[in-house]
Amino acid sequence: MHQTLLSVFCPATIANLSCGFDVLGLALEGVGDRMTVRLSGHEGVRITRITGGELPMEAEKNVAGVAAMALLEASGYQGGVEIEIEKHILPGSGIGSSAASAAGAVWALNQLLGNPFSLPELVSFAVAGEALASGTPHADNVAPALYGGITLIRGYDPLDIARVHCPLLLHAVVLHPQIELKTSDSRSILKRNITLQQGIRQWGNVGGLITGLFTEDYGLISRSLEDVVIEPVRSLLIPGFAEMRESALRAGALGFGISGSGPSVFALCRGAQVARETEEALKQSYESMGIPFKTFSSPVNQQGVRPWKNEP
Amino acid sequence: MHQTLLSVFCPATIANLSCGFDVLGLALEGVGDRMTVRLSGHEGVRITRITGGELPMEAEKNVAGVAAMALLEASGYQGGVEIEIEKHILPGSGIGSSAASAAGAVWALNQLLGNPFSLPELVSFAVAGEALASGTPHADNVAPALYGGITLIRGYDPLDIARVHCPLLLHAVVLHPQIELKTSDSRSILKRNITLQQGIRQWGNVGGLITGLFTEDYGLISRSLEDVVIEPVRSLLIPGFAEMRESALRAGALGFGISGSGPSVFALCRGAQVARETEEALKQSYESMGIPFKTFSSPVNQQGVRPWKNEP
Repeated sequence: MHQTLLSVFCPATIANLSCGFDVLGLALEGVGDRMTVRLSGHEGVRITRITGGELPMEAEKNVAGVAAMALLEASGYQGGVEIEIEKHILPGSGIGSSAASAAGAVWALNQLLGNPFSLPELVSFAVAGEALASGTPHADNVAPALYGGITLIRGYDPLDIARVHCPLLLHAVVLHPQIELKTSDSRSILKRNITLQQGIRQWGNVGGLITGLFTEDYGLISRSLEDVVIEPVRSLLIPGFAEMRESALRAGALGFGISGSGPSVFALCRGAQVARETEEALKQSYESMGIPFKTFSSPVNQQGVRPWKNEP
Repeated sequence: MHQTLLSVFCPATIANLSCGFDVLGLALEGVGDRMTVRLSGHEGVRITRITGGELPMEAEKNVAGVAAMALLEASGYQGGVEIEIEKHILPGSGIGSSAASAAGAVWALNQLLGNPFSLPELVSFAVAGEALASGTPHADNVAPALYGGITLIRGYDPLDIARVHCPLLLHAVVLHPQIELKTSDSRSILKRNITLQQGIRQWGNVGGLITGLFTEDYGLISRSLEDVVIEPVRSLLIPGFAEMRESALRAGALGFGISGSGPSVFALCRGAQVARETEEALKQSYESMGIPFKTFSSPVNQQGVRPWKNEP
């Protein structure tokens, strides 16, 4: 008898990683949603329960629902699917909340159907869900959520994903200022054009970051965590950004930037100890801002979505 | 007694490698200049002999002379230097002719002075020479000429160079159409701005190429050898470009593009056999153009400038 019910852990993710706008992403171990998927007799996809966040119960308006429908349509499976969503990643926080739900739904459903689809195919189903949330289909959160570690989206047409080596020592710190910042707004302030000189500097940094990750050269990783294209514009939407950067770097972080389209910010650190010190420094720096915030620090999730055990 | 005379092999190089405009470069084993450097009693730098190309004999107008002067000035060495240049790389061909001379001069001189300078320092001296040739200081030919293999210039200010893993199977084919195309002209036709979408695609490809090189994933290398920024403009200056690309790819090359600022074009191939077949296909494709040309195929030079033995 086939398994008909599966609960999975769906990691939060940091998209862009400073220089890698729209192409790089990293999965986090410390925070993730729990998704429970059940095969049912009723045709179609139903969201049966959502806890921890206010999200649409209608499947066609819910990113996990849309992602699951995309998979179902491709699968030829005639039955139905019920999805329970237990949010731990705050929607709108900028660490891949919608991507985690979409990734978890398709990964779990694929398991229950006997793994008919490859990881790249699962990414493309999850991207269909993501498009609902951000207005444009992007994969820089769903790819690391499904693959784990650090992923590169080389191109979108067709979707071309590669896993980049990720040193086990790498830790991330996230600070989430509890202000509202919609992905679509955060995208609309971007300029349509950049100078060739900015472009050269940006692809030099992308090359440096990836080379540094493969060779575990933390100096090179640190120097490459620079964004001359998006951050100068987008950071204006995040109060206290410059002060936080200074605190994080002074505490020993390798780099500091905006997580995805924000408002969360992140620091990458070499080792858990520096990550804890950086988290502490960020807290102290942000307390005077008068804006509620949350922080956490976490190793990199190397595995992607996985069956739920006793996650945090 | 110290050595006072040294002859070196200075490899030709392919800058840019399609997507990596101004940041990536690769050293070639098959073609290179011979430079002979001698410490002398006469103060200053003198070019004593040039064969194989018409280049200025005045040191301050010669890239190797200027590079050597930059090193001498930093060294505190009081004596003089004589340089003999035996060109095998045709000036203006687009495979780093001036870079080879500059790199060879500083590498040999550094050896004779007892290696006071590091490789990155040698690159910066050689760049001073390069600036004379192209009007702008760039390091994407001198870095691979000095380091060997494939190099990344992450940034220029300060100069930040990293070596990228280069699979031993990688071979390059070069076709040099014997038309004149000055680096400065070839730069002046470039647009000052690019769209953000072009930028994203370009840094996705740079990330893909470097990931492919480290993981020896030839499919990924091949898909990443795409230039959506420079090539569409610059290839218009190279007659027969589209036909050559088609021939090279049909013969099995991983990718095809402009070598540096042209007019030479290159293909990268997996293995010597495919390289030979690609060279043959390129020859056949170009013969009908009525433009004189030369071709060669070569493994990657993994060592950079080295003492001259019995090079080709």
